[in-house]
Amino acid sequence: MRKLFSFLFASLDGYHETHDHDIHWQDVDDEFDAFDLAQLDEAGAILLGRVTYEGFAEFWSTPAAHEADPIRAKRLNALPKVVVSRTLREAQWENTTIIGADADVELRKLKEQPGKDIQLIGSAKLTGYLIQAGLLDELRVMVSPVLLGGGNPAFPVSGQVSMELLRSRQFSNGNMLLVYRPHASGTAAEPAV
Amino acid sequence: MRKLFSFLFASLDGYHETHDHDIHWQDVDDEFDAFDLAQLDEAGAILLGRVTYEGFAEFWSTPAAHEADPIRAKRLNALPKVVVSRTLREAQWENTTIIGADADVELRKLKEQPGKDIQLIGSAKLTGYLIQAGLLDELRVMVSPVLLGGGNPAFPVSGQVSMELLRSRQFSNGNMLLVYRPHASGTAAEPAV
Repeated sequence: MRKLFSFLFASLDGYHETHDHDIHWQDVDDEFDAFDLAQLDEAGAILLGRVTYEGFAEFWSTPAAHEADPIRAKRLNALPKVVVSRTLREAQWENTTIIGADADVELRKLKEQPGKDIQLIGSAKLTGYLIQAGLLDELRVMVSPVLLGGGNPAFPVSGQVSMELLRSRQFSNGNMLLVYRPHASGTAAEPAV
Repeated sequence: MRKLFSFLFASLDGYHETHDHDIHWQDVDDEFDAFDLAQLDEAGAILLGRVTYEGFAEFWSTPAAHEADPIRAKRLNALPKVVVSRTLREAQWENTTIIGADADVELRKLKEQPGKDIQLIGSAKLTGYLIQAGLLDELRVMVSPVLLGGGNPAFPVSGQVSMELLRSRQFSNGNMLLVYRPHASGTAAEPAV
């Protein structure tokens, strides 16, 4: 069975973004860029929540994206995309599958398909859901050297989830990559995405 | 001028304790114990918020503490203690000074005294105050491999605080030590401790 891992940024105080969705505190430099592209190479499919999906689809399918970041644009457009949403009916972006109901069943099926691993990108709510559903194999967090003092939580779970720290990497700009294997906590509501 | 550093545990989602003050998720083993004693050796004085101070005073001054953990008990009793509190009038624990008002002025004076560094232990509210007052030189966080899903924040600050990551250390039990130099954010109310 292939692995499902989630990658997202978080502040040291556990927020994914400010209340007004500001993510400018995330420092992405050349070292991050090389890491991020290598990580994308691990993926045979990418999984996204609806909000992240719509942002990605809007940008990465454009000629501007191909010009600004041709390597990443080519890969993101070519990779199969899976978006979890109960409201999205039709996907404009190429190679997209929508999971509208029975997310846990459909995602289990997706993991059982042959191929490279599945990468969930930047979707905090979906990450929280997958942790509690026992479907997330790795939680990869880039902890930024910042306190936000408030915002939308990076790991919205209800109740305590213990994890195993698999590895860590300190980046020269102060970002800290922490990679965990979450232990299933047993309870998970369907994701509200 | 001597350095003021704060050491505290936090969950990956940024909580210091659950709402009902549970800290049993903090994993302290022999490796932690050696680290913690070495860190205590860096300190010429320890600084505590009222709640932590009262817990420490109650336990570490007893014969039971001397029996259970003689090295740490001896050091904690001998070290000068400084507690920040507007309600505490009298301290029973030996070598204690109470700072009741003008905390920022008094703590600046304390930092200007000769001697080894000052260690703030386990006091989230006071840590948040010191960060915003520009008085904290190092924030040392032991990130536990756990999500609490809610609780009392480990870093209660209002507004964004950027920091510099100075160093990190991965412990074999999955704890991750992250050491930051906070940049002063400019605004700080007197601590409500």
